[in-house]
Amino acid sequence: MRAVDIIAAKRRGREIPADDLRDFVLDYAAGRTPDYQMAAFLMAGVIRGFSRAEAEALTDAMVRSGGTLDLSELSGPTVDKHSTGGVGDGTTLVVAPLAAALGMQVVKLSGRGLGHTGGTLDKLEAIPGMRTTLSGDELVAQVERIGLAVCAQTADLVPADRAMYALRDVTATVEDRALIASSVMSKKLAGGAQAILLDVKTGSGAFMKDPEDARALAQLCVEIGEDAGRATGALITDMSQPLARGVGNAMEVREAIEVLRGDRGGRFTDLCLTLTGHLAALAGVAESPAEGRGRAEAAIASGAGLERFAAFVEAQGGDARIVEDLGRLPAAAVVLEVRVPRGGQLAAVDAEAVGHAAAIVGAGRERKDDAIDLAAGVEFLPEIGDAIPGDGVVARIHAADRAAAERAGEAVLAAIALHDGPVDPPPLVLGTVGNRLDA
Amino acid sequence: MRAVDIIAAKRRGREIPADDLRDFVLDYAAGRTPDYQMAAFLMAGVIRGFSRAEAEALTDAMVRSGGTLDLSELSGPTVDKHSTGGVGDGTTLVVAPLAAALGMQVVKLSGRGLGHTGGTLDKLEAIPGMRTTLSGDELVAQVERIGLAVCAQTADLVPADRAMYALRDVTATVEDRALIASSVMSKKLAGGAQAILLDVKTGSGAFMKDPEDARALAQLCVEIGEDAGRATGALITDMSQPLARGVGNAMEVREAIEVLRGDRGGRFTDLCLTLTGHLAALAGVAESPAEGRGRAEAAIASGAGLERFAAFVEAQGGDARIVEDLGRLPAAAVVLEVRVPRGGQLAAVDAEAVGHAAAIVGAGRERKDDAIDLAAGVEFLPEIGDAIPGDGVVARIHAADRAAAERAGEAVLAAIALHDGPVDPPPLVLGTVGNRLDA
Repeated sequence: MRAVDIIAAKRRGREIPADDLRDFVLDYAAGRTPDYQMAAFLMAGVIRGFSRAEAEALTDAMVRSGGTLDLSELSGPTVDKHSTGGVGDGTTLVVAPLAAALGMQVVKLSGRGLGHTGGTLDKLEAIPGMRTTLSGDELVAQVERIGLAVCAQTADLVPADRAMYALRDVTATVEDRALIASSVMSKKLAGGAQAILLDVKTGSGAFMKDPEDARALAQLCVEIGEDAGRATGALITDMSQPLARGVGNAMEVREAIEVLRGDRGGRFTDLCLTLTGHLAALAGVAESPAEGRGRAEAAIASGAGLERFAAFVEAQGGDARIVEDLGRLPAAAVVLEVRVPRGGQLAAVDAEAVGHAAAIVGAGRERKDDAIDLAAGVEFLPEIGDAIPGDGVVARIHAADRAAAERAGEAVLAAIALHDGPVDPPPLVLGTVGNRLDA
Repeated sequence: MRAVDIIAAKRRGREIPADDLRDFVLDYAAGRTPDYQMAAFLMAGVIRGFSRAEAEALTDAMVRSGGTLDLSELSGPTVDKHSTGGVGDGTTLVVAPLAAALGMQVVKLSGRGLGHTGGTLDKLEAIPGMRTTLSGDELVAQVERIGLAVCAQTADLVPADRAMYALRDVTATVEDRALIASSVMSKKLAGGAQAILLDVKTGSGAFMKDPEDARALAQLCVEIGEDAGRATGALITDMSQPLARGVGNAMEVREAIEVLRGDRGGRFTDLCLTLTGHLAALAGVAESPAEGRGRAEAAIASGAGLERFAAFVEAQGGDARIVEDLGRLPAAAVVLEVRVPRGGQLAAVDAEAVGHAAAIVGAGRERKDDAIDLAAGVEFLPEIGDAIPGDGVVARIHAADRAAAERAGEAVLAAIALHDGPVDPPPLVLGTVGNRLDA
């Protein structure tokens, strides 16, 4: 089919045969089909909808558009995880070393991304000396030796996805389940791991505000992964409040180390343990998610997880002494306490607004080439349901200057709602998707 | 509104405020908004639909994107006509001189276009020496002196329409009533005439196969024209068979001269008289379309129409002796008669297929820079309802070589259906649109 015929068929709501769709995407990636034809096609698809077969063909084409990581020399089991993103979502920094401690081989390619805080790569760069670019050979050797590597996606992986993602961003065609799923899953399939766990977020701080949308996206991603021969599962998790206490790059590294030290409880720790347990079940190193979670708890208690984290930092050139001495991480010049005028139970948080507050002090970037202040961010202290006394501290703003810190503090206060009566904390995990995760 | 917000609003089916829509189109015409954003917007609009207010804003933006013809020095009344295009549709060559003979001033800017035969400009170029490019001043002076000019649209008119039309062609966003109406009407409004008559075709040889679609398009065009202060009306006419006998460039010029000489009856002559009558009523030079038609018949009988045609040819540098001597028009080397194997009443013609047959012998172009054989084409002889005897001639193919003529002949035979019983000829005019045309 010619490009214009494919566009016309999608405009009429027809399903595009897999071979035609794959050729269309590959022609686009090769520069033979112009942006404007892809833009018209994407808009038609977003309005008319894509079938599961189309989502799989799109994914397949994106994978074929570039190179793939060859993990065949690893002893395995190789695993990967992906979060759809949220506020204070630094689970990779905890889950990857715990999974390694449980005998999995974690191959995690990350992005930089736009957002309230940087991507995982930016967080890692808060560690002095840390290198985030590894060659394929370096990555494989490191994973075989220490069980994990987290580094930048190489330029030759899924070029079609990169081009289409940039185009979707400027043509109002981001919000589509099949396009999101194929973008996520093409990167995971090209990354080569045998087991893939997705953490699909829902709530005020997530892209998917509606749990049903999150579940449908998770379902499609799992189907794509399983049909491609990978052990795939997903958790639907709550992002109705910041996940970790820290929303900022160095701050999230610090908190990850505290969790691995066993010094922290709360929702963030809980989710890291749950994710590790499910990953273990998917990879076949545990009989069930519950058993996997138990082993993850033991890896914290024994220090095995922290030891893997230190080995990982050292392998990528970072200063592993941070594990013992958190003072070696970047620290902000100003730390401002944010107090509530009157007390109450924390009933709701606009997590996205807390993220914006972190961006106000420079923790994230709004444009590709914005510089990030790695030390800056927001420590948001309570969880929904917690009682806060009058004049109590709800947050600490870490910033380079006082004026920005005060603006961020006002944004945090505007983002919370306190009630007088008791408030039930929301569940952390709303559901799982994938046959392999049925306990 | 930013471009991406306009696209997102249209994707959700919202009406875009006129000012925002105009700025969006003007930014596109100025190269400040890229093709891919316009492509996404157009696709969203084609699927979700545009309102009448949006169609008017689009039209207005296209007019404002370039220059407009200034006809203020003409004594008037100035008139323009437009046909949505069909097979053997050379009405301009007859209607323009007849309207001039009735005292109207015809300002007709034409295109070249792709299709079975060339556009009006290609037809004119079949006249030896004929010039189709006039400056604005030349055009105004010629119209004031002889009552008509038919020439190429100048490059500075409606640049936004040209850019959007080219983009629609390659992004499967051609078929939309508001986009078609704004494209047609922006050219007519920029052309400056006070009265505008549209001939909206429907049937097998027309873009609009369905008469209801044709009527809705006509209605929208008339509303746009009237709201812009022009006397506007439309006829819905049948294109279920080739309109003129000749489908080819020199052939259509020859037939126009024959009609103006009074040597031809049939549907083509009928429609030319009807169009001229309606144009006269719109322009106020006749009390009613019927009175206008009567005066058009008189202008043929008196030779006044033919005389205007000759003056027009001479004014634009053409060889006006063709009016007396049709042999001066280009003639094909091969003329092949196409005979039916057995007789019957002509029940149906695939007019588009007859157009394709003309394209086979080189009467039209499929790509912008294809050369046209001005002498080539198809003479399709019967009208629906006519009886054709066994072994009777239904068409004559005019071509440069015999092999192409034979292929075209086969295509013509495949395009017709003969019945044994009597067949009613279809009506020529299916309706009129516009208050000014209510008789």
